[in-house]
This record gives sequence, C-alpha cells and structure tokens, in this order.
Amino acid sequence: MSKHPLDDGPVSNRRVVLGARPVGIPRAEHFRIETVPVEPPAPGQVLVENHYLSVDPAMRGWVSTESNYSDPVRVGEVMRASAVGRVLRSESDDVREGDLVVGRFGWQEYATVDAAVVTRTVPPDLPPSYALGVLGANGITAWLGLREVGRPQAGDVVAVSTAAGGVGSVVGQLARRLGCRTVGITGSSGKARICTLEFGFDEAVDYRSPTFDDDLRAACPDGVDVYFDNTSGPVSDAVMPLLNHRARIVVCGTAAVASWDPWPTGPRVARILLTRSARMEGFLLQDWLDRHDEALAGLVPLVRSGELSTREHVFAGLDSAPASLDAVYQGNNIGKAVIRLR
Amino acid sequence: MSKHPLDDGPVSNRRVVLGARPVGIPRAEHFRIETVPVEPPAPGQVLVENHYLSVDPAMRGWVSTESNYSDPVRVGEVMRASAVGRVLRSESDDVREGDLVVGRFGWQEYATVDAAVVTRTVPPDLPPSYALGVLGANGITAWLGLREVGRPQAGDVVAVSTAAGGVGSVVGQLARRLGCRTVGITGSSGKARICTLEFGFDEAVDYRSPTFDDDLRAACPDGVDVYFDNTSGPVSDAVMPLLNHRARIVVCGTAAVASWDPWPTGPRVARILLTRSARMEGFLLQDWLDRHDEALAGLVPLVRSGELSTREHVFAGLDSAPASLDAVYQGNNIGKAVIRLR
Repeated sequence: MSKHPLDDGPVSNRRVVLGARPVGIPRAEHFRIETVPVEPPAPGQVLVENHYLSVDPAMRGWVSTESNYSDPVRVGEVMRASAVGRVLRSESDDVREGDLVVGRFGWQEYATVDAAVVTRTVPPDLPPSYALGVLGANGITAWLGLREVGRPQAGDVVAVSTAAGGVGSVVGQLARRLGCRTVGITGSSGKARICTLEFGFDEAVDYRSPTFDDDLRAACPDGVDVYFDNTSGPVSDAVMPLLNHRARIVVCGTAAVASWDPWPTGPRVARILLTRSARMEGFLLQDWLDRHDEALAGLVPLVRSGELSTREHVFAGLDSAPASLDAVYQGNNIGKAVIRLR
Repeated sequence: MSKHPLDDGPVSNRRVVLGARPVGIPRAEHFRIETVPVEPPAPGQVLVENHYLSVDPAMRGWVSTESNYSDPVRVGEVMRASAVGRVLRSESDDVREGDLVVGRFGWQEYATVDAAVVTRTVPPDLPPSYALGVLGANGITAWLGLREVGRPQAGDVVAVSTAAGGVGSVVGQLARRLGCRTVGITGSSGKARICTLEFGFDEAVDYRSPTFDDDLRAACPDGVDVYFDNTSGPVSDAVMPLLNHRARIVVCGTAAVASWDPWPTGPRVARILLTRSARMEGFLLQDWLDRHDEALAGLVPLVRSGELSTREHVFAGLDSAPASLDAVYQGNNIGKAVIRLR
C-alpha cells in the first residue's frame, strides 16, 4: 500500500492567478496571489516543486482575448508559465521522483499536473534555470527561427530587435557563428554595450536615441539580409527600408506594440516586400515541436563550452511575479527573465 | 554588299515618351507623342515593327523615382513596355527577319534594339497578343507566383485580388486546376459575374460593395490559405484577418495604393503573421528568369486546348496609349490590357 503522496510534503501552495484581464501590458494590478492546499497527484499525475518560473513577453498574448495562437488564460486561473522544478511525487511511470523537469507548471510554488505536461529533464551539469531560457523556449526559438525562417548565409547582415533579451542575445551569437555580420537593436546605450561586448554583436544601436534612424543606417551600410523581429512597431519600421533583395524577416514577437485591439496602424510593408522580393514570416515555437530536440542538441554543447554567453535577469520570489512582465516590457531586463523560488 | 536596312521600310516612327513625372497614377497628361526618324539597326541590332503594346499596372512603378526594382524611365524617354512585333530587319545572327518576337520594345511603332532585347518568339498558332498576357508576363507571374510562393495544396482556399485582371484571372483558373477552392475579389458586380462564369472562381465578391467585408467573410467560411495579392490597401486589409494557420500571401502588386511617397499607413500585419505562422512574400518576375520557359511549357497547352479562358481588353492605336494606364487603374479592363497597332 502506497504512502499518501503528501505525507511528508508541502501542504499549501502559493500561486499567482489572473485577477483581471489587462488591456495592453499586464501589470501587477492584474494579478492576485492566493494560497491554496497542494493537490495530491492522481494516477498519471505528478507533483512538482517549482524552482524557477519563466517571465516571457509572449505572456501578454496569453492573457489577452485578442486573436492569438492559444486560448487565453481565464480570470481566476493560475498564470500560465513555463517552469523548472523537482518532481516530489510521481504517480506516472514516465516521470521519476527527484528529477529536475520542465513544463507549463504555471506561476506557483507547486504544480500538480498530468505527467504529459512534463516536457523534458534538465542536463544535470548546467544551471536548471537555463531550461527556461537559452536551453528552453528562447534558445530553441533563436536556433530554429534564425535557421529555418531567417536562413542566413555567411556574409549576410543580420539585424535583431530586443538584441539584449533572452531570444535576441542568442540570435546574434548564433548568426555570428554562421559567418554573418550582426547588428543589435536595444533600448539603452548600456544594453548596446553589453550587446557588443558580451553577445558579440558587430554593432548595436539604441532605439531610444534621437539619432536612432541615422545610427541604424550607419550600422547597416550594406543593408539588411535577415531581420529577426521581436518588436514590430517603430523599430521595425526603421529596419524595413534597409532590407536587401531577397531579405527575410522572422516575425517572432511584437513587444513594441502595446495593444492589438484596435488593430494598430503603421507603414504598409507590401511595397517593400514586393520590390525587394522579400519574405516576412511568423515563427511560432509550437509549430516546430518535432525540431526542438535537434535545436537543443545544437545549443547544449555551445552553452557547456561557454561559446554562447548567457545572461539572466533574476526576480526573487513569487511576490515579484505580478510586476515582472511590466518590467520586461519596459526593457529593464538583460537576457532571459526568470523568477527564482528556491 | 548588303542593301541599306531601310531601303523599302518605314522612315518615321511615332512614339510615346514620358513628358512629366507623375505623382501616383500616370495619366494622359504625363505622356507626349512625338514623331522621329526610324533608326537603322547597327550590327547586332534589329528593327521591329510593333503589333501589340503591353499596358501593365507595374508601369506605374517604372515611371516613379520611388524605390523600385528597376531604374525609372527618364522624362523624354520612350515609355518602357513589353511589345510583340515582327522583325523587319536583322543585323544579328540570333534573330530572323520575318519572325514574330517579344521584348521590351517600348510604346512606339518601331523599335531599333539590340538583338539581346528580343526575349522569345511567339507560337505561330496562337494570337500574338497572348505573348504579352497569358503567355507572357501575366501568365508566367500567375504560374510561378502561385506555385512557388503560394504553394497551394488541394483543398486550400485561394483568394485573389484583381481577380478579373490579366494575372488574377489566370491565378484563379490555375488554382482551381490544382484542386483549390477559389475566391475572386474584383471591382464590380459585373466583373464578379465574369470571374465565376468565365474564370471559374467558386465565388467572387465586389470590393466596392458596402457589404464587402461581410461578403468576403461569407465567401471564405473556412478562412484563406493562399492570398494572391495584386492590390495591397483596404482589399488586403479585409483578407488578412481571414488567414489560416500557415497561410501564404503572394505580394504581386499594390494597385490599390495610389502613392508610396509618403509611405502610406495601414493596419500592421506583424501580429497576424506571427499568430498564424503565416508567410508574406514578394514576387518579382525578373527574379525567376530561369523558370519562365517551364511556366510557358505549362501554360501553352492549356491555352491551346481552351482549358484556360483568356480575355483581353484591347485599346486601339498608339494614340490610346497615354490614357490607358489610368483606365487600368480605374479597373475598366477585364483581362489583359493591350494596345493594338496593326
């Protein structure tokens, strides 16, 4: 007869739920922290103790009822988030107790989830939080989005928006390894310095500078062949006229557009795409599930050897979660933003 | 000793030159007709008597100094245009006198050009003017743009703007032959009827109708997988929200946007491309020169057998040329617009 799963374990779970549906950027006031009993795992389920929670720009879309690629988080529901944690109890043959695992465990201390929600384990010799960033959604997005949609060739100029962020910092480094000249676009002169010094960008420009347009043009005297776009908005409007013949735009995020309801306007891109024979294509990680392992297999050795520089912006404790997205949207982070619980 | 090339030939050439650079649509007042002596062909050149001149929406771009894919026609220069004509004199071993040939011979009665400008001959059993439309730039654009950029699969919904035009009417028919459901968008209820009756569109909607948005949505209950876009502007804005996951947009023309200087604004497309993993890509015929023969090889049998319906809008005589582009931009034509000289 098996022991009750919670005999020696935690009894209460603090969690961040969506308190009100935001218009635009989700801020602290849109979330609520509540304490509930830990649910014991049913057969086929596991109980995970979360160690790191992810903070992703994409979460804005997840709490919006605007057209998106997944159903919105409901008001009152735990905030959807990737997390890395340890398996305390497993009622599944597929997941071992004690393992560090990754999954959509949500912004909470403990998650009781179906074993199918556990997507993978974490390499034991690397920091577990990397599973949310450079060895998680960020790194996989950078690897596949750049290679499969951006298709850079040696000698290409690759421009990247949110270049100091979790995705952009990896894109720049991967593009440079492929023989490209890289131009980072970021939100301060300090972050621009980090882009060149730490993430190896050949040049980096500050989009908040009054001379941004000129700076960008000066940084791209031979135009742009691949634009890895995490922002949309005015930053992207400045890149578009610089596109070369047969340029590729990877539409990976729209962080610079505060709201898509009503549909915002901006310069029409059709004529640029036409006259340059250029391609603009959306990249959704979930459409490339069968390629994630391949991307990780490419990333792990680079991280392990230190060839790929990684930065994390660490928020401390669950109480920091409600305001964390706002901070990311203000561009306060360098590298991947995570919340450390323990 | 060879006879002087003009011994029995024409001595004067009427031609349409660009008289003033238009802002937006080129109208009659931007052109001037002048009479000049026919130039005898030098070694390596040919003298062509033009029979049909092409009228193409793309000509607007050719007379504009806005960013484009080719240098602008200079004021005082013969209007650049494709034409089909007979070789009167050849001073080249590559081109035979008497042949019907196609090339960028310009809006004029006679062209003295390098033999290299002659791109091909015309199938003798088919109307020569087809070399400018369904068996020329229009047909090749439709064939390659649809297949290579649009990549339709059987069962896909293919929407086409300027569906009754020289390109759109061919795109619709080719898509239907590939097993797609086709929805044409055109500028009058009369043209919509021709789209369904003559060009085989499953449905056709009039974008000038006050109920256009609803009509389009009703015509596409399962969304749109491929959008062959010849217009940009409000027509395309209505199509974008209907795009399905992994949709493809072929950006082939921007006929609905009167001017690109200053850069016009419209709804931003980034979020739609992102959330649908959709692709928007420019198609320029000149980037596919090595595939033109393949496209023609596919088109000729369909035209010869009558499986591909073709319409021409014929302007009579060189004097009709200056106002012809304006008429095309007003949507007065059904099918390919040409000017018949003889």
